[in-house]
Amino acid sequence: MRQQRVVLARVPHGAVAEDDLRLATGAAPGPDDVGEGQLLVRVLDLSVDPYLRGALVGRHLGSPAVPVGGLVPGRSVAEVVVPSAGHAAGNLVEVETGWQEWAVVDAAGAQPITVPEGVPPSAALGVLGMPGLAAYAAVTRLMALTPGDTVVVSAATGPVGSTAGQLARLAGCRAVAVVGGPEKARLATQHFGYAAAVDRLAPDWTDLLRAACPDGVDAYLDNAGGDVLRGVVAQLARGARVVLCGLMDQYNDGPPSTLPAGPLIGRRATVHGLVVYDHEDLRQRFTARIGKLLHDGRMRLLEERHTGLAAAPAAFDRLMRGANVGKVLVEVATRGGTA
Amino acid sequence: MRQQRVVLARVPHGAVAEDDLRLATGAAPGPDDVGEGQLLVRVLDLSVDPYLRGALVGRHLGSPAVPVGGLVPGRSVAEVVVPSAGHAAGNLVEVETGWQEWAVVDAAGAQPITVPEGVPPSAALGVLGMPGLAAYAAVTRLMALTPGDTVVVSAATGPVGSTAGQLARLAGCRAVAVVGGPEKARLATQHFGYAAAVDRLAPDWTDLLRAACPDGVDAYLDNAGGDVLRGVVAQLARGARVVLCGLMDQYNDGPPSTLPAGPLIGRRATVHGLVVYDHEDLRQRFTARIGKLLHDGRMRLLEERHTGLAAAPAAFDRLMRGANVGKVLVEVATRGGTA
Repeated sequence: MRQQRVVLARVPHGAVAEDDLRLATGAAPGPDDVGEGQLLVRVLDLSVDPYLRGALVGRHLGSPAVPVGGLVPGRSVAEVVVPSAGHAAGNLVEVETGWQEWAVVDAAGAQPITVPEGVPPSAALGVLGMPGLAAYAAVTRLMALTPGDTVVVSAATGPVGSTAGQLARLAGCRAVAVVGGPEKARLATQHFGYAAAVDRLAPDWTDLLRAACPDGVDAYLDNAGGDVLRGVVAQLARGARVVLCGLMDQYNDGPPSTLPAGPLIGRRATVHGLVVYDHEDLRQRFTARIGKLLHDGRMRLLEERHTGLAAAPAAFDRLMRGANVGKVLVEVATRGGTA
Repeated sequence: MRQQRVVLARVPHGAVAEDDLRLATGAAPGPDDVGEGQLLVRVLDLSVDPYLRGALVGRHLGSPAVPVGGLVPGRSVAEVVVPSAGHAAGNLVEVETGWQEWAVVDAAGAQPITVPEGVPPSAALGVLGMPGLAAYAAVTRLMALTPGDTVVVSAATGPVGSTAGQLARLAGCRAVAVVGGPEKARLATQHFGYAAAVDRLAPDWTDLLRAACPDGVDAYLDNAGGDVLRGVVAQLARGARVVLCGLMDQYNDGPPSTLPAGPLIGRRATVHGLVVYDHEDLRQRFTARIGKLLHDGRMRLLEERHTGLAAAPAAFDRLMRGANVGKVLVEVATRGGTA
């Protein structure tokens, strides 16, 4: 049996262009390829994430670069086809599959997906997955929030940002979004409940931020780096906490993001570098809390869904240009569908 | 009665030059000038500190700039001449006097000096004063040290750095000095007990730092900013703590110091901006602990002593060029001496 896969067409420089990736056809794994402690899974929803840019060129946590012609890595919601202990056929798992239709994976690395009623399984790739856990760790472990704090979030309508912004609001804080464009600003306040939203593409965005945060910024979750990071740090309140979570400019080979040291001293600020994998110990509590908030309708998610593996390169390109709206997913197959 | 004073001769640009300050003669205050709740004091030892550069131009914690012709601010060890409640004549106090021979000061702002036997009262301006408290807060409150940690300190033989380095060593850590020049490197290891010292003026100093910290830097106290800050941050170990305490380049109108954000995420680092005045609550414990360590000879101090108020401008110039060795003091008078 054959399957479609997305492979690296050439080593990307700068922002990943759609042409850096290409669709290829290869042999699909079958039941005979499944070893001891492994599963055969069918990819349903593929997760498209900014960290993949670094992973392609070997800049993600020490993993080696993807060779030209190699499979693009990535996590998916997948359906178990050939089961193993703890994973029955037909069950859904969240697992590293790469960008392909079928995969043989280690059973130990596959997370069973349990989502509350009314929540799509794909939430396991967003608000209930790594992006959500990053936000949860930032807000509950590193930000040391007090009700009434002004909490600024960049990339505020993405899966990390929107989870953080909503958690901050639910914790009694004033959440202020920094987003790219008026459509996302509208989404931030109307869909996610931010108290205010600032469009970083406006030439006077730092003035708008000052107007939205008249007492300064008590906590900031940075998913942007670059000018946004510098602009927000210039408006920190005394004793502010900054959590660095992602640097879009570094993903795209931009000049390295920096923080000005003077304001950090003057404002007695604390800066934390966050890598989500360090916070796995929070996962059980995280899943329970966020799951309940989603179920109760107190927290919302937003997905941008593309159809068919062939759409994945363009979807990634949209994400890296910040043109996406919400968590980017590629629907590769539907549950229980035929090959 | 007349007295000598040091006043601002012109608004400094860049590094303070000796010519930016000048000696002047003015009326000395007498007993008739002392109001309710005030003291007349005689300055014995004048403290010469980097923060004064910012204070001259209104960049120190919101205090206004010193006008041309105005008295240079500064703290001193002074002898009480006209007493007030709680401060008997002949007692020593640590107090803001400015750079002059005599001063009328508020009794409430004067700290009685009690130093252990064998420790000079001038320690109240260094290891037992604000610089020591800054180091104590950095090491005991912000660095979260574990025995065995590698702790790097810049300006490592100055009053802040040498206190921090010794405290880190006494806490079971490996203290590594970053200093300017071979003489200070020798002092760092031989006088202050650092495990290693790196001369930041050597062209390959970052290689030397790597050799001195083969497992990376677990904690860093920055008193330098600029290239030193960037160079050390590039060698942080995972989970490292950085305390920002002073930025020499900013004191001297250099380009603003920055921290690279990427390594802070990759190493899951925490950065704290430190302003000593926030840590007054530690003072009693600090004074007791450091006093005992000095008395027992487990901690050492180092002073660079200049004689006569006329020497103060040149002493400040030496400090701002990093040419000083140890805490810079100007001996204006001796205890019990005549006017």
